[in-house]
Amino acid sequence: MNPDETVTEFIRRIVAKDVEGAFELCADHVVYENVPITAYEGKAAALEFLGGFVAGADELDWPVHRQAATGSVVMNERTDRFRFGEKWVEVKVVGVWEVEDGSIVLWRDYFDMAEMNAQLATLG
Amino acid sequence: MNPDETVTEFIRRIVAKDVEGAFELCADHVVYENVPITAYEGKAAALEFLGGFVAGADELDWPVHRQAATGSVVMNERTDRFRFGEKWVEVKVVGVWEVEDGSIVLWRDYFDMAEMNAQLATLG
Repeated sequence: MNPDETVTEFIRRIVAKDVEGAFELCADHVVYENVPITAYEGKAAALEFLGGFVAGADELDWPVHRQAATGSVVMNERTDRFRFGEKWVEVKVVGVWEVEDGSIVLWRDYFDMAEMNAQLATLG
Repeated sequence: MNPDETVTEFIRRIVAKDVEGAFELCADHVVYENVPITAYEGKAAALEFLGGFVAGADELDWPVHRQAATGSVVMNERTDRFRFGEKWVEVKVVGVWEVEDGSIVLWRDYFDMAEMNAQLATLG
């Protein structure tokens, strides 16, 4: 897979709630950063955080609106949607990726924390 | 210029405070959106907002850390730095662009509004 395809497959596995499978596409030293929150360094820390968050949702749907790739860099514009029970929450996101030798070494998501908090607040 | 070069030149002109020159690279129906704030539809509205903001700063410096382009889509990861008097404020941004027939038709910046507000608050 080229970097573009690697990111597409990574997202596909996350949305299928196969977070462990997704992180098989990452290097051990991957950095996963939610820019307004914090960064997780290393596959174990990233997997622990994201695995817990994804496990708490009943369903994921992350449509990718646009994706561009040049060399090792991939970026995509998404709406990350999560279903909790009957309720969907969604956040507008852009992801920045670095893929080296077939493995993701950087995944950095940009979004507005206020939008995320407002969405989570609707869950009550 | 291809789409990648068009966006690079657009940023170069903005940073040089040549906002009118920058918008010569945009279609009349360009949409300029700051995702956490609002969208401006059409070149006149976009130019009025950004022109005023840029004119209020003494100096701009927008380093582009990563840029990727596929077809008409360009995305870049930047730190947008503005100097007001002695003080620099900066915001971490990702821009999403669509360039059609050599003209920018979409420029959408994603960032965290809380970071922007905290930076502006340092100006006192």
